[in-house]
This record gives sequence, C-alpha cells and structure tokens, in this order.
Amino acid sequence: MPDLLSRRRALLGPNVSTFYDDPIHVVRGEGVWLWDEEGNKYLDCYNNVPHVGHCNPRVVSAICAQAGVLNTHTRYLHEGILDYVERLTSTFADPLGTAILTCTGSEANDIALRMAEAMTGKRGIVATDATYHGNTTLVSHLSKSNVPEVGFGLGKYLRHVEAPDSYRIADPDGRHFAARVQEAIDDLEASGIGFAALIVCPLFLNEGFPAQAEGWLRPAAEAVRRAGGLLICDEVQSGFGRCGSHFWAHQKQGVVPDVVTLGKPMGNGHPVAGLVTTPEIMARFRSSFRYFNTFGGNPVSCAAAMAVLEELEEKNLQANAARIGKLAAERLTELAGKYEVIGDVRQSGMVFGAEFVLDRDTKEPASAYTDRVVNAMRHRGIILSKLGRHKNMLKIRPPMPFAEEHLHLLIDTLDSVLAEMPARA
Amino acid sequence: MPDLLSRRRALLGPNVSTFYDDPIHVVRGEGVWLWDEEGNKYLDCYNNVPHVGHCNPRVVSAICAQAGVLNTHTRYLHEGILDYVERLTSTFADPLGTAILTCTGSEANDIALRMAEAMTGKRGIVATDATYHGNTTLVSHLSKSNVPEVGFGLGKYLRHVEAPDSYRIADPDGRHFAARVQEAIDDLEASGIGFAALIVCPLFLNEGFPAQAEGWLRPAAEAVRRAGGLLICDEVQSGFGRCGSHFWAHQKQGVVPDVVTLGKPMGNGHPVAGLVTTPEIMARFRSSFRYFNTFGGNPVSCAAAMAVLEELEEKNLQANAARIGKLAAERLTELAGKYEVIGDVRQSGMVFGAEFVLDRDTKEPASAYTDRVVNAMRHRGIILSKLGRHKNMLKIRPPMPFAEEHLHLLIDTLDSVLAEMPARA
Repeated sequence: MPDLLSRRRALLGPNVSTFYDDPIHVVRGEGVWLWDEEGNKYLDCYNNVPHVGHCNPRVVSAICAQAGVLNTHTRYLHEGILDYVERLTSTFADPLGTAILTCTGSEANDIALRMAEAMTGKRGIVATDATYHGNTTLVSHLSKSNVPEVGFGLGKYLRHVEAPDSYRIADPDGRHFAARVQEAIDDLEASGIGFAALIVCPLFLNEGFPAQAEGWLRPAAEAVRRAGGLLICDEVQSGFGRCGSHFWAHQKQGVVPDVVTLGKPMGNGHPVAGLVTTPEIMARFRSSFRYFNTFGGNPVSCAAAMAVLEELEEKNLQANAARIGKLAAERLTELAGKYEVIGDVRQSGMVFGAEFVLDRDTKEPASAYTDRVVNAMRHRGIILSKLGRHKNMLKIRPPMPFAEEHLHLLIDTLDSVLAEMPARA
Repeated sequence: MPDLLSRRRALLGPNVSTFYDDPIHVVRGEGVWLWDEEGNKYLDCYNNVPHVGHCNPRVVSAICAQAGVLNTHTRYLHEGILDYVERLTSTFADPLGTAILTCTGSEANDIALRMAEAMTGKRGIVATDATYHGNTTLVSHLSKSNVPEVGFGLGKYLRHVEAPDSYRIADPDGRHFAARVQEAIDDLEASGIGFAALIVCPLFLNEGFPAQAEGWLRPAAEAVRRAGGLLICDEVQSGFGRCGSHFWAHQKQGVVPDVVTLGKPMGNGHPVAGLVTTPEIMARFRSSFRYFNTFGGNPVSCAAAMAVLEELEEKNLQANAARIGKLAAERLTELAGKYEVIGDVRQSGMVFGAEFVLDRDTKEPASAYTDRVVNAMRHRGIILSKLGRHKNMLKIRPPMPFAEEHLHLLIDTLDSVLAEMPARA
C-alpha cells in the first residue's frame, strides 16, 4: 500500500485525491459489492457510476459484442446512436427531443453553457454556492468550494446563490430560493454581463439533497424565463430513475428545462455522457458552432448506454429506488431516535443520508465527526462518503440494484458505529 | 439511407457533419477494413483512432476482461493506471514523467492551457491558422478555420500564426516560422495579455503535414522558452509511432515539450486520452486546481490503452509505419510523374498524401477537384479525406497495420480515378 501510494505520487503528481484516510486498493466489483486485494468485501453505498451494478452482465456483454464488431465515429451513419437517442429522448417531455453525445458530463455542461450564450447573446451564469458541475476551464468556475486559481478569468461570468438547505432555511415552496436567483439575475444584468442561464442539479445533491415538495423549483424556473435565460438541469447524478418517483429529477421538480445534461451513470462506467435539448436550441447552437466529438456517440458507447436503459426497465430499478429510499428514511429516522448527533434525515429515492450536528438546537455541523463515521464505516466494510454545505451529511448513493438486505446491513453497521462513537469525544 | 439521414437530423439536429456526398452506413470493421450495410467492403485509409486496426482482438479482449472484473474511478487505488502511466512515460525523455488521464483530447488540451496559465500567470496562446485542437469552450478558439460564434469571449487570448507550408513558403530550418511565433509573442506581450504557450501538432497534420527536416521546430521552441512560455505539443494525431522514425513526433522535431497531449489512437477507439508533463508543472497545476475526472484513468480505459502499447511493440508497427510511408512516397511520386494535377507529395510515416493544384507554376489549389477525388475514391471502396490550408491535400492516415498490399490497392485505385478525372473538367 505505501508502495502504491508512492508510485501514485510519482506518476500522477501531488494532490490527487483518494477516499478515506486509509485508501482502499480495489481489485474486483460485482453488483453492489467491491473487493480489495486482500479479499475483503465492501458493500458499495457510494458509487452511482455503476448505476445498474458493478460489472453488470448485460452492460459488459453489450460492450464486448459491439467492441468486436465496430467502433468508430459519427461522421459515418450508424443506427446505434439513433436508436439510443430515440429511446433516451422518449423519457423526456416535449420539446426535449434532440441530443448531443459526449464522453463526460463536464463536456456536456461545457456545451450547455455555450447553448445559453448562443440563445441569449449573454454570458452570466447562476449556480449554487455548494455545487460541482465538472472540470473544463469554463465549467470548473461553477464550483465555489473549489475556486480554481487558473481559468482564463471566466469567474467574472458567475454568480453563486446560497444553496437550498431544508434543515436550516425555511423555504417550503421554493420562493426564497427563487428570490435569491432573481437577485443574481439582477446583479448580472446591472453589471452589463447579462443573464444567460441558471444551472442546477434538480436534487441539489452535492448541496445535501434538501427535502423539497414536488414542484419546488417552479418559482426559480419562472424567474429564469421571465429574464429570458435558460434553465439547465444537470442530471449527471440525479437522473436515470435515481429519485424513485420519476425517471428524471426535474420532472419531480415540476419543470421542463431547456437543456438537461447527463453523465456518470449513463454507460455504467463506460465514458459516455451527453445532453438533451429542444430542436430550437440545438439548431441555434449547431449553426453557431460546428461541434464534433471524436468518441462521442460511438457504437460501443451507445451499446453500453442502451444496455443501461434496458436493465433499468427490465429490473424495474426506478421502483426499487423508491421502495428502498422510503425504507432507508424509516430506518435512519429510527437511528435519529437513538442518537442525538443525527440532526436531520433526508432521502430522495436511492440517495439518502443523515446530517450530523453537535447540537440539535444550534444545528452546529459535526463535520469532523462525519469524517470519522465515514472512515469507521470503511473499516467495517461499508463504502460511503459525506457531502453538503457543511460536509456533515452522509452521502449514500448506491448502485440501483441495492436491496433490502443491503440496506439493513448498512443501517445496522451505522448503528453500531454511532453507538461506539460519542459526538463530543 | 434517406430514412437514416432524416432520423439523424431529427434526433441529433442540423449541421451534424458526415463524410462524403453519399455518406456510408458502416456496420462492421476489422483491421484496415470497414463494411457497409449492403456488404460492400472499404479499405480504411483515413481512421487513425483504430490505431492498431478496427476491432483489434488484443484490445477487445483487454476491454472485455477488465469490464467483467472492475471498472471504477481513481479515488480508490488501482494498479492499472500506475502500470499504464509508467509504461507510457517510459517512451518520453526526462523530465516528462507524470500524467493526467482524461477521456478526450479536448479535455487534455483544456488542461494543458490551464497549466500554461498556472506556470506563467498569463493567458496568451499561440496556434497556427489551420489547426484544430478540440471542442471545449476554451480549446475551440484554437481553430481559426471554424471560429465559434459562442465561446465566452476567450478569442481575445488567441494569436494565430501562418501555418508552415513547405510547398509554398521556403523555411528549411524553421526560422521563418519561429519569427512568426516571435511576432505573436511580442503582440501578446504588448497587448498586456502576456504570453503563456505555443500549442502545435508537431507534424502540423491538419495544416497539411509539411516536409520538415529533423529539428525543424527547435527555433520556435527557443523563442517560446526565451519568452518564458510553455511549448505544448498536441500528439493526438501524430503520436504512438505514426511518424515512423520516432514514437512521438516531437522527438523527430528535436524538442522536449513542456506538455504533450494525447488522444484519439490511445485506446483504439475506447474514450481515453491524457497528457504527459514534468513533475514541476504537474505540481503547480495540482496545487492551483484540484482536478478530478470521473471516468479518466479507470481500469477498463487503462487496459485498452495498455493493450495498444503492447500491440504496437509486439507487431513492430512503428517500423511498419516507416516502411509503408517510404513506399507510399515513392508510389505517389510515380503518380506525380503521370498527372500534372499533383503538385506535391508529402509523407511522414503512416501519414501521407498528394497536394492537387490547377497549375504547377502558380500552385493554385485544386480544392474542388480534391473533393471530387475523395468522393470518387469512396465509390471505389477507398476511404480517405482531405486537409491542409487549402483543403487540396489528400489525408491518408490509415490504421498502423496498413500493409504493402493495402498501399498498392490504394495507389492503383487513385491512379485509375485520376486517369478518368481531368483537372480542368
């Protein structure tokens, strides 16, 4: 292990992040399980990229079959991309009927922001102050928590608004958030930059997936439209059935975005991503910019992505997300009855967690404690992480085939870790 | 076919480019061959992405094997990325010993430009006026021939210099080009933007791969270093043995770049790309910016990329590129003796072509003629394209296992097409 870490530093450079104080050397994955090089088994409650399970046989065999027949770019005609985009867009409301396929969610968001510029002639982008949308020069500026020191001065086009936080900021119908968005829009317009788009994850997942009633995003969407801007929903984490109640989280939020970006779970780990938009926006973008992506939409990527859609449907995994999420909330609420350190429990289908606080009255975040819980869980064979505005929320976002038995193992283990770890230790 | 084209327009939007007036509907590939849906066979003289041949069995089996065992991100430890980066960097001169893996060459160039900003504190980038380096908001500005109408105003940081053109601009030792680069540097410094980097494909492949003596790029590299900037070599097309004489084209050019970016051929079509740089630059970038790429460097991508390196070595494909390239130049020179329309023949290993002109004295480009040749070749079962400053140069850039028999078929077919197609028709 020290050897691997020193090779890593030499070959990949410093400051390359790992998970856990004692990083795991993984060698094998299957379904919701990972194994390390010593044969230890871990329940994967974190990874949303293997959406239909690590090494899902349908996806692996789709990749192998297509890789052995043809893999090339989209300047030739091929039915793979057309069949996939047809099936993908059939899950969206009109007029969201056209797509661009890329390799990463970063690339998709990078295009989405240019679509906003193409449609509005303006460049001002609004995002929350606790989000992440990717790593290109432009897109990296959306992350306030990790402001890059380099980035060609693009920070001037960004305005960050306070992230929703259902535990601390009362906002039952989204009007408080919409007012913050409106202020950012006004500021951009007053500055002469002008307003082009609001980009949000419709579950506000990195922000701590606050509890929100259906339709909560409507007031913000209305503010965006009134100002002539685009609503971009980044469904890289929230999409493909994860929220349980809907296939896309923006549908739960009661809005039809102008652009929806997709990524991580789309090919179950195969590098495929993309965006879905209206014919009007697509035409405007494509007349402003002759976009081509060598690997984007190749037959193997489309085969992997199609297998994910098929697996979700045949295994009824969206319904599973709804059922397991509900049960998770119940079991976490039980734990909240036992442990004062749990200040709040939240879930939205197959993403759920508990927020740790030092004091339920002051709601002071127990961020260091959360870190210790995450590391203790890792040593008990449970992989999860933390997130949110104060990094004091458990990030539990397992592959979609996560079943009842897995949930009980997760919660029972968390129960015993919390029992042994007093919050004020 | 009309049906496929109309589905494509509806699902992917307008202005999505295809090859040829009559696009090919491909269904299968193997080695240097592609097949369409009617069973017609095409000799692939264009595609450099399937570097070791379409559906190369070693690469396909590496992908299948790893996809069935584990595919996850690099925040866990895994030997795949370390073994690959170790082997990859062993092909570079010191101090080019560290790497970042991404999914696309665009992402790699997007990072490289930020590395230049991080090292110099400046943002001025110099590129040639006939190049292409990718499709992110920042990187797309490097293409002067396809200036995007959208792009967050980043065009102000770019200066384009006249591309080298050995057929029209005498520059035997690269001093003329270096002087143009120096002018661009001076202009950036005078404007207050400052000079950060020169980015070039060391074969100037899109520019028409001009004939250049070994070490031709040295004067330009010296100008860059004197000005305190970085030399970025984009080896997305030119690398992995294609130039025949060296594994990397910058080695043929007699320079050690600060950053080398990689892409298309790296995983034989699997979406993997990256960059190699010095520990010093890597450390500076990584302290300025906590870069993470979800799919970048995953075990399946690394397995595909490793199989490409193994196949290149075991099949001795760099030597094959040198041998076939030499023969190609000989046979194209024969054709130039028969056809007045061929003004120049150029080759650099497994990239070669002929430049068509309406008049050998005036060197007036025969661009429309070149287009007709490309389409006629397609109807005779030979896939190639055109490139260069005047789009009058054949782009012949086949997979590396391209053999003597394939070359003769290509040239014999070209011979008969040229015989039937008078330049002044």
